[in-house]
Amino acid sequence: MNFHGGDIYNYNKQLLDFSSNINPVGMPESFKRELINNMEDFTRYPDIEYRALRANLGKYLGNIDKEMIIVGNGAVELIYKGISALECSYSAALSPTFVEYRAASALNNMDFTNMGEYDETEEAFNVKKILTYIKKNMVMILCNPNNPTGSFIKLPEMQLIADELERQGSYLIVDESFIEFTDDYPHNSMINFIDKYDNLIVIRATTKFFGMPGIRLGYAICHNTKINASIKSKLEPWNINTAAVIAGETVFFDDDYIKATREWIKAERQYVYDRLINIKHIKTYKSYANYHLIELLNLDMDAWQLKEKMAERGILIRTPEGFHHLTKYHVRLAVKDRPSNKIMCDLLEEILEGQR
Amino acid sequence: MNFHGGDIYNYNKQLLDFSSNINPVGMPESFKRELINNMEDFTRYPDIEYRALRANLGKYLGNIDKEMIIVGNGAVELIYKGISALECSYSAALSPTFVEYRAASALNNMDFTNMGEYDETEEAFNVKKILTYIKKNMVMILCNPNNPTGSFIKLPEMQLIADELERQGSYLIVDESFIEFTDDYPHNSMINFIDKYDNLIVIRATTKFFGMPGIRLGYAICHNTKINASIKSKLEPWNINTAAVIAGETVFFDDDYIKATREWIKAERQYVYDRLINIKHIKTYKSYANYHLIELLNLDMDAWQLKEKMAERGILIRTPEGFHHLTKYHVRLAVKDRPSNKIMCDLLEEILEGQR
Repeated sequence: MNFHGGDIYNYNKQLLDFSSNINPVGMPESFKRELINNMEDFTRYPDIEYRALRANLGKYLGNIDKEMIIVGNGAVELIYKGISALECSYSAALSPTFVEYRAASALNNMDFTNMGEYDETEEAFNVKKILTYIKKNMVMILCNPNNPTGSFIKLPEMQLIADELERQGSYLIVDESFIEFTDDYPHNSMINFIDKYDNLIVIRATTKFFGMPGIRLGYAICHNTKINASIKSKLEPWNINTAAVIAGETVFFDDDYIKATREWIKAERQYVYDRLINIKHIKTYKSYANYHLIELLNLDMDAWQLKEKMAERGILIRTPEGFHHLTKYHVRLAVKDRPSNKIMCDLLEEILEGQR
Repeated sequence: MNFHGGDIYNYNKQLLDFSSNINPVGMPESFKRELINNMEDFTRYPDIEYRALRANLGKYLGNIDKEMIIVGNGAVELIYKGISALECSYSAALSPTFVEYRAASALNNMDFTNMGEYDETEEAFNVKKILTYIKKNMVMILCNPNNPTGSFIKLPEMQLIADELERQGSYLIVDESFIEFTDDYPHNSMINFIDKYDNLIVIRATTKFFGMPGIRLGYAICHNTKINASIKSKLEPWNINTAAVIAGETVFFDDDYIKATREWIKAERQYVYDRLINIKHIKTYKSYANYHLIELLNLDMDAWQLKEKMAERGILIRTPEGFHHLTKYHVRLAVKDRPSNKIMCDLLEEILEGQR
């Protein structure tokens, strides 16, 4: 188990938590109502096949056949089981990225390659570079948008990657846990090509966009029935709890919540970005997700020192432990509501610009 | 994934469900209140270490150090990870029993032995028989009370088994998912000897006794820090959802609920048993749990035919699929509330005694 997901439990709960990426719109009111109205459902075993839940997900994703959908205890369970099911000798991912890809590869004795950092400003180069890593018997795992950099590989480039992997008899897992935060969603999702690729697994989570990481509901979509069967064979029975099943009845169809969240993230991501790029002594990564990665430059202060200074003033930030290939000067900042974002940016500016 | 846990989802929900073992006292009201009051907790990641939850479990179990406790997504996750962590070549269990022991053994390429049926009326013989199966490099998994027979291995016998396994450098997993339903609980639990054995894992679930299978909260207790670390290393992060964490704050300390459940099961298990042994053409197994296994004798009717007849009259029963070493004449009947139990017994009597 690696460290990630925020460590608010080590602090006073009164801190403003920029260390974990949670939707400040809160969780859907429709879920709260549904949970209260269906509380007796906890007294029964969930449907071991989760038929209604998968059908709801299929509708949400735009008429995807529920037989293509597998549900998991968060995206992370499906990352582990998906990587394991493909039975490849090699795996590759961007770096830095979500550490569980490497951990799951290690668990399956796969030879794992860090491909380095994707940078859209050198798009052609980067996709070309990614293509050079592809070989037979490989699963490439791309987090899109990527965590923690926030970078995004657009659909035409992603198709080039999927095509080349297919040509070599290899596989692509796209972790779209944050994709609903992007402005171009749903047009930029690989789910649009789910029928086209038999070497593709798309993994999503309800965690991030719907602001309910406690619900533990991830899902995978795959057109290849053999891969699907293999993933299912690795899952233990009743991996999804009743609260998640209840959430599935309502949150995907809560248009007000979805609209509010999309409006919030579009406005606030831009606000924070515009503030950050104007703060001296930091590099700000361009982000498509609900967080920004920054790097402290030319400062006698590393991420942990900054964390202490900000925690003293009531703000919790994410230091680089739990990610490979971040330096001790990297910090990840969640995007929250405007008042919180303003407090955080003001404080960061004060600390960094007062520094030298 | 094997079939078990009731298939009410294939039927009209209006059937009285005797196919799955759920506490008819319902779930604790204290949980419902706590869930409503703490609903915002879903918007945060659970503590990745589940410290408060494990501390609550430790209190419930009688001052067990939380460092000895591991939480899982239902008992079944801990059965899989526990069996895997011990890295033995051999495993053994009673038969019939919960099928996941054999499935988990197969997944870990273990040579699995069915030891046959435990029968307390030949107690000495049976424990002696169990001891003969013990060898080096083995994990023995005993479901106590056993599912589906309801048989129970008492503490002195269980200690003989644990001692012999220890002598041979082998391991014991006791699945006590149903033990809180026994009259002698907590005096008959191997948790009383948890400090004594370094080769013992006890597994429990909140599912059964607290009437909330949808909550997905199992736990394992083990005194051996190496085994603990190995199990933990196999668990994916955040395997426990927020509803389960909230349940842990309250249900274990809900004395009214615990008292009501213990009074219900004591009275109703006896009522159903007394009815069943007086119905002709069946063998009724003596049960310590919240179900009875019966075998249809000398009838031109198998379990599936009985199931159809009873379903027509509004009662759902459990046919033997999903268990090894049951015949097609075996049926498992949950213990429910008195009116339901009476309806079920009356109908069974009518169908079986009207039969020939």
